[in-house]
Amino acid sequence: MKPFLLGVLGGMGPLATVDFMAKLLAATPATRDQQQIPVVAWNVPQIADRQKALAGLGPSPLPQLLNGIEKLNAAGASHIAIPCNTAHHWYDALSRASDAPILHIVEATLERVAERAPTRVGVIATHGTLAAGWFQQGLERLNVTPVLPTEQELESWFVPGCYAVKRGALREGGELLSLQAQALVERGAETLILACTEVPVALDAIDSPFLAHAIDPAQALAERCSALWQKYR
Amino acid sequence: MKPFLLGVLGGMGPLATVDFMAKLLAATPATRDQQQIPVVAWNVPQIADRQKALAGLGPSPLPQLLNGIEKLNAAGASHIAIPCNTAHHWYDALSRASDAPILHIVEATLERVAERAPTRVGVIATHGTLAAGWFQQGLERLNVTPVLPTEQELESWFVPGCYAVKRGALREGGELLSLQAQALVERGAETLILACTEVPVALDAIDSPFLAHAIDPAQALAERCSALWQKYR
Repeated sequence: MKPFLLGVLGGMGPLATVDFMAKLLAATPATRDQQQIPVVAWNVPQIADRQKALAGLGPSPLPQLLNGIEKLNAAGASHIAIPCNTAHHWYDALSRASDAPILHIVEATLERVAERAPTRVGVIATHGTLAAGWFQQGLERLNVTPVLPTEQELESWFVPGCYAVKRGALREGGELLSLQAQALVERGAETLILACTEVPVALDAIDSPFLAHAIDPAQALAERCSALWQKYR
Repeated sequence: MKPFLLGVLGGMGPLATVDFMAKLLAATPATRDQQQIPVVAWNVPQIADRQKALAGLGPSPLPQLLNGIEKLNAAGASHIAIPCNTAHHWYDALSRASDAPILHIVEATLERVAERAPTRVGVIATHGTLAAGWFQQGLERLNVTPVLPTEQELESWFVPGCYAVKRGALREGGELLSLQAQALVERGAETLILACTEVPVALDAIDSPFLAHAIDPAQALAERCSALWQKYR
């Protein structure tokens, strides 16, 4: 059996990747360094903008994503995780190009949803992630009604909130994303899936009360990676 | 010219590596992801204990360090940083094995000391780092008197403080390392070099007042890496 080594295809954005790496460590019980999860991380943010590409307003990030996958495989990754929901748009193409299996962030998240058995779940996500429909389809399989942001909400709150985080304005991003969260809760969402890795970082920066009942796909993915490592170590 | 890609030889410990990666991002002015520093990080903590190896109580970590250097070079690293003071004991051997130049954490730190022109500077470091004498020699070249922990202090506060951090007990580690900092300040240190990457993480966890006047070598190294990237981008 190949030794366990988690490859992290990061850079989308770079801060969300660092946050994911911290979550991996926090999710792993360890009393000394040597018990911690071994990771090789490709945190190279020189990748075409995913949201723009999916809106038809920019080049595809696929070549750069494939390059990262190649580097992680060459470095010996036994498994790969991608702490970016939108990048899962290219999941099938990346999986075909990768020797190491790629854990899917949506599957990891739906496991957490199933445990809580809610009726209505809000999904805070990019246009690209929403258009792909993975979360909606997954929720419907669990007999859960998805509550989605409107076009107007995405434009006023979600998109500017994410870009604020990307330029380091975490509090500003947190305030905007909080308005988005509030709107979904007002439409009956009992739980929120924070399906863009910028969102939990921003809500955390303003100590948002929405975090307590939210499901963070990056956290779910980190827990799945950590559980896998614990079987190997 | 080879494209800029910072290789981070991490894992020592894994949390300090994540902290260093966050410092790299914070040190780089960027208004969008694509301006951020590109990084490939080898955060594999399955490395023989550096402190034990230098005390003659365990195997050398050199083979695992060399493996990390090889992986980072193969991934295309143009420069390498090692966010672990003690690992710099093997700096010469690693440099010889690396095509990419390795930035030295002590040089980056001494630049920061020189800017402040203090008279007496405390050094909180492992036995191994202190025995190597790099910080002491560098300080003396700057006409600064080093103030060092005693054997007794290392044994009571520093060593258990670091191992507390490694097992995730940040507050416990912070309290112990705070006692070490206090002792050096009482012996006349105006500034402290926190020359073990666990120390700033732990002092931060308890909001220690010693952080304000301290020099964090990981921070100094991050700033040097970021300055280099800004010349390339």
